[in-house]
Amino acid sequence: MVGGGEGAFIGGVHRMAARLDGHWDVVAGSFHSDPQKSVAFGLSQGLEADRAYADFRTMAASEAKRADRIDAVSIVTPNSTHHAIAREFLLAGIPVICDKPMTTTLRHAEDLAAIARDTGLPFILTHNYSGYPMARQARAMIEAGELGEIRIVQVEYAQDWLATDQTGNKQADWRGDPSKAGPGGALGDIATHAFQLVEFVTGLKTETISADLSTFVAGRKVDDNVSVLLRFGGASKGMLWASQVATGSANGLKLRVFGDKGGIEWAQETPETLLFTPIGEQQRIIRRGGAGVSKMATLATRIPGGHPEGYLEGFAQIYSDAAELVRAHKEKRSPSLCSLQAPGIADGVRGVKFIEAAIASSTNNGAWTSI
Amino acid sequence: MVGGGEGAFIGGVHRMAARLDGHWDVVAGSFHSDPQKSVAFGLSQGLEADRAYADFRTMAASEAKRADRIDAVSIVTPNSTHHAIAREFLLAGIPVICDKPMTTTLRHAEDLAAIARDTGLPFILTHNYSGYPMARQARAMIEAGELGEIRIVQVEYAQDWLATDQTGNKQADWRGDPSKAGPGGALGDIATHAFQLVEFVTGLKTETISADLSTFVAGRKVDDNVSVLLRFGGASKGMLWASQVATGSANGLKLRVFGDKGGIEWAQETPETLLFTPIGEQQRIIRRGGAGVSKMATLATRIPGGHPEGYLEGFAQIYSDAAELVRAHKEKRSPSLCSLQAPGIADGVRGVKFIEAAIASSTNNGAWTSI
Amino acid sequence: MVGGGEGAFIGGVHRMAARLDGHWDVVAGSFHSDPQKSVAFGLSQGLEADRAYADFRTMAASEAKRADRIDAVSIVTPNSTHHAIAREFLLAGIPVICDKPMTTTLRHAEDLAAIARDTGLPFILTHNYSGYPMARQARAMIEAGELGEIRIVQVEYAQDWLATDQTGNKQADWRGDPSKAGPGGALGDIATHAFQLVEFVTGLKTETISADLSTFVAGRKVDDNVSVLLRFGGASKGMLWASQVATGSANGLKLRVFGDKGGIEWAQETPETLLFTPIGEQQRIIRRGGAGVSKMATLATRIPGGHPEGYLEGFAQIYSDAAELVRAHKEKRSPSLCSLQAPGIADGVRGVKFIEAAIASSTNNGAWTSI
Amino acid sequence: MVGGGEGAFIGGVHRMAARLDGHWDVVAGSFHSDPQKSVAFGLSQGLEADRAYADFRTMAASEAKRADRIDAVSIVTPNSTHHAIAREFLLAGIPVICDKPMTTTLRHAEDLAAIARDTGLPFILTHNYSGYPMARQARAMIEAGELGEIRIVQVEYAQDWLATDQTGNKQADWRGDPSKAGPGGALGDIATHAFQLVEFVTGLKTETISADLSTFVAGRKVDDNVSVLLRFGGASKGMLWASQVATGSANGLKLRVFGDKGGIEWAQETPETLLFTPIGEQQRIIRRGGAGVSKMATLATRIPGGHPEGYLEGFAQIYSDAAELVRAHKEKRSPSLCSLQAPGIADGVRGVKFIEAAIASSTNNGAWTSI
Repeated sequence: MVGGGEGAFIGGVHRMAARLDGHWDVVAGSFHSDPQKSVAFGLSQGLEADRAYADFRTMAASEAKRADRIDAVSIVTPNSTHHAIAREFLLAGIPVICDKPMTTTLRHAEDLAAIARDTGLPFILTHNYSGYPMARQARAMIEAGELGEIRIVQVEYAQDWLATDQTGNKQADWRGDPSKAGPGGALGDIATHAFQLVEFVTGLKTETISADLSTFVAGRKVDDNVSVLLRFGGASKGMLWASQVATGSANGLKLRVFGDKGGIEWAQETPETLLFTPIGEQQRIIRRGGAGVSKMATLATRIPGGHPEGYLEGFAQIYSDAAELVRAHKEKRSPSLCSLQAPGIADGVRGVKFIEAAIASSTNNGAWTSI
Repeated sequence: MVGGGEGAFIGGVHRMAARLDGHWDVVAGSFHSDPQKSVAFGLSQGLEADRAYADFRTMAASEAKRADRIDAVSIVTPNSTHHAIAREFLLAGIPVICDKPMTTTLRHAEDLAAIARDTGLPFILTHNYSGYPMARQARAMIEAGELGEIRIVQVEYAQDWLATDQTGNKQADWRGDPSKAGPGGALGDIATHAFQLVEFVTGLKTETISADLSTFVAGRKVDDNVSVLLRFGGASKGMLWASQVATGSANGLKLRVFGDKGGIEWAQETPETLLFTPIGEQQRIIRRGGAGVSKMATLATRIPGGHPEGYLEGFAQIYSDAAELVRAHKEKRSPSLCSLQAPGIADGVRGVKFIEAAIASSTNNGAWTSI
Repeated sequence: MVGGGEGAFIGGVHRMAARLDGHWDVVAGSFHSDPQKSVAFGLSQGLEADRAYADFRTMAASEAKRADRIDAVSIVTPNSTHHAIAREFLLAGIPVICDKPMTTTLRHAEDLAAIARDTGLPFILTHNYSGYPMARQARAMIEAGELGEIRIVQVEYAQDWLATDQTGNKQADWRGDPSKAGPGGALGDIATHAFQLVEFVTGLKTETISADLSTFVAGRKVDDNVSVLLRFGGASKGMLWASQVATGSANGLKLRVFGDKGGIEWAQETPETLLFTPIGEQQRIIRRGGAGVSKMATLATRIPGGHPEGYLEGFAQIYSDAAELVRAHKEKRSPSLCSLQAPGIADGVRGVKFIEAAIASSTNNGAWTSI
Repeated sequence: MVGGGEGAFIGGVHRMAARLDGHWDVVAGSFHSDPQKSVAFGLSQGLEADRAYADFRTMAASEAKRADRIDAVSIVTPNSTHHAIAREFLLAGIPVICDKPMTTTLRHAEDLAAIARDTGLPFILTHNYSGYPMARQARAMIEAGELGEIRIVQVEYAQDWLATDQTGNKQADWRGDPSKAGPGGALGDIATHAFQLVEFVTGLKTETISADLSTFVAGRKVDDNVSVLLRFGGASKGMLWASQVATGSANGLKLRVFGDKGGIEWAQETPETLLFTPIGEQQRIIRRGGAGVSKMATLATRIPGGHPEGYLEGFAQIYSDAAELVRAHKEKRSPSLCSLQAPGIADGVRGVKFIEAAIASSTNNGAWTSI
């Protein structure tokens, strides 16, 4: 693991998620940009002394030489550092699990994509929401044609933790600093999740967007509210709203898709159920672990329906998929179909393109901009 | 009443709504464009023979001469006829209650506005959703500053009854015929409700919009899906979505408003409660008839909380407000504050401006267009 | 109308409900036990002077002699007076619409039943919750066998308006006075509704009950919390809870029925939908006005799904049914099937039996007691 | 770990829960009553060969002698074997984490209680629902007096997986076999959870109960539906319903508590929020990780609100508490206040008493029976 030291949020999440299904142990790491803190934190986590590294370059180099080298590196640092770290480990021959957005510039994203392609190494991007069983259920239903031709996609991701000035909050500080987070605020932090979920679930590719970005809190250097109109291939349209100042919203990621045969609705805060309405019929509540659930959703499930799975389980699914991808790569075999649902380098490139297109469109007063 | 004969939907609604609070009786009417059907329907409703009129012009002229003339006319015909009928009655000195959208052209809307101003007669537009107690609660809270400065408004109005070709359905036929409904489909039928509700609740004026209209069902002559970005004065932004092809949605009008002191959420299908989150505090469920409800919401309430009021009660409120406006006008006194919440000619003009701006923007590939 | 004068709650509800569908007008009444107040209130409601009666006996006698006599009397007085008033009107040949519980003693209930039987006059008891379309949907589904053999019935009716001492509140005062309300508090006021709804929806007859009544608020003379175990014929079982001290509950009447083929759930505060789970299948949301709704539910419906109907509409349905029953009786024909769903004298007798059995059981420490 | 081999449900849950917070590793086990299967499963889980035991007695004896002996044993076998296994390990000096119900007879329960008392060893019973943060929030609020004096407790636990004959389903088979599960069906399996949750949250002790047990599915040897009236000390009353034949219910554990100052509601399937209504005020949605959450709930929390935690996280909390209890015991210090919330031997004894009282009461036609 690189990043995720003392006081980090997402590092701890990654560790719990990695541990849950029993496929991963953290055995080496470089947890902090300060070498001493990095080593100290590693030791505090019970790592062997020679694997509590001072920095990621040493870690990549050292691990590459070990017989018991790490199966993959998990990168949970601020966005601007993803590129350099991922590059280092890929070039050292080590598969990468990386937090999103993948990079802060398209050039960096495409560079990683090229290296991943050249090395053939697994690269998993933790767009964790696509690990939820019912998000996969939605995807499976659309793939199976149960919604027919997709007409409309409405997605939103509403939070409120940045509704006031949060200067001094460690999470807010780096996310609000373009030199660390990249040019997007809510755009990079959460709109990219919404965007990835749309394409993951529907299989559609967004062609052009019209965006209107706002910054409501005085002094903030990045956007905190994002309104986007989407056009997919053909007649399909969509709207995407992401906000971090929507008071009353905790982590409100919600997706609705309407086709000419039916419509679905799924919300991350009540992730266990999916509403499905076949045209002209009664609405159905599809429940994780319940009747009529697809194979892909079932494979992403741990416990019976009614025993709520949540965020860590969805995140763990990405780690389980990653484990299978890494194992299959090592064993030179095809990975399971389930694991192929894990987001990867292509999602990363599209996410960065989305960020750049949204900023360009907003700067041009909403001009429709290609992705 | 003009319109609302055999097979009409909204005519029956108006009659029930008018009756509920006991302020109105239908005593005269012209119910159909076919004179014979008009008279026959009037008689079937128990009207006296000389007040079951063959056409609205005769009705306006005759009623104007009677000592026991009608207190107001309720116009529930297709949109394109509103202007001529409302004009006739206003000029005959009779107050008007009119369904929305007020007219199909801005010229007509402004003409009515001028006549209403000149005659000084009450003109009520049945944007019925602003009659719901909890919509008025939302307005009262915003007026009182409980949300602070408004930042974001998210409104949607999703239906699915037009997800398939409904040719032959009487309601769908006239609503899909631009010569009767005007140039907007979902835009005029439901997006105008959403637009009016936004301005009613927030007190904001929409300055410019960027719209993307779609028609998903082949052969349909008007839009059936409407995506709009909104800009209000200052930094405030919004999104408006209206669709009649959103399978799984019945009559999903939902409004969320976020300010720098709090956020609220209200949905027409669960109209009895309003979610309110003061920044940094727990979310509260404000219930019609319950603790902490404003005077304006209480005045629009009939029965105790927990005994659900719904669509007809909200609609009835507009009719009760209209009764007070008409009575106050007759008695040459100021109407009650409650009744002043009823939508009127100004809402009508803005609604038509909104329709025209949305069409213009969409035609210009989403160019920001003034209202 | 008898009762329902100044300050009454249910009288106003009855008037709105009667008016909504256009079948009834209040043309005569005795609204108060004080003759002067009675007349004054009648006049204030616009009644003709000779029909604003001083007392119900004069009203019954006078109306019986008029050619344009009332079609029915609506009795909305405190429970203890129902018997005498209903008796008087039935004997005068006038159909009765009566609030519940029907009487305060079983002897009185059986007396009314005998008179109703002898006179053959319509007698409608306003157990209004059985007027809700989705309650009728539930009944229709069970009649049609969609739930199979009923196993378990869970019903509850939770309010909180009596969680504190409400002495001085007019509604609370008479409801808490056994000389006016009868021996039951929550038992008579709301548990009877729950009991009637169970038998209405399921078609089951409750055979024996075990009850535990409580009075939580000091000084209160009647129960305010009711726990009952139910046994129906065969193996079927149930639980009934009614409370007026359940803080956070407004008017929480909720019914769940589980059979060997499926289960349903309906709640009065969200009356527009019914949850249905056929065994082994996905749960479905059956919506008023939506797909797959039974004829009986559709007949009790006014406006399209998604446009919420509520308490007054459900109550109005009982009045519409009553109108048809009265008309059919006058025209000496069979009433419509729909109207036969209206609760009547038999429900009234069972309700009073239920009250008496619950009190007897609770007094005997929960001994199973026949109804 | 003892039990939880191939095909077991709860064994896998325990392992994931134990792993999640990083306090536990499975290093030894006896997973099956068949010695060969036991060893094979242990090896498949990556245990060292000498710790993949053939049976629990060998395991207890061997582990007791090791320097690196297990910190605790987790017992996840059918109920009837809990006593012998727990006894063996306690007498070997090893702390016990045991699934519920603790034993199948009161004699056995009291025997374990005596041994636990005598040895002073930690004994944790996995009534996992008391590990949910918002269940602990409810408890903290009641302890702090926010509900005032408790009046009414309504608890239910509804499932439907046994609505049909499930013979051949491994989970159903042992749970329906009194020789393995003990005398209770739904009673032991789920009603005990509901009972424990009531006492955990409210701090009340149930004094007497009146129960009505049913078996709806032909051929079933244990109850599948449980109706119980509860009396606590003083005036407090309650109702408990547990069913495994309630079609449409997955794992519907729901608790409502009403006091003279307020009421709360919590449901396991939507575990992240707690509804709280202070008397006379608006209802509040208390959210895990949100405003106004108690320290005890916060200590049981991993990730921010809106990122749903669920069943495994609640279960993991019990394991984390157990880790602290075991560590504190080893270090001869007081355990944290948080860990003291973990259910233990006393809950186990009360659970078995509850089962025995319910059966006795039901056998005696609902006679009130002491616990």
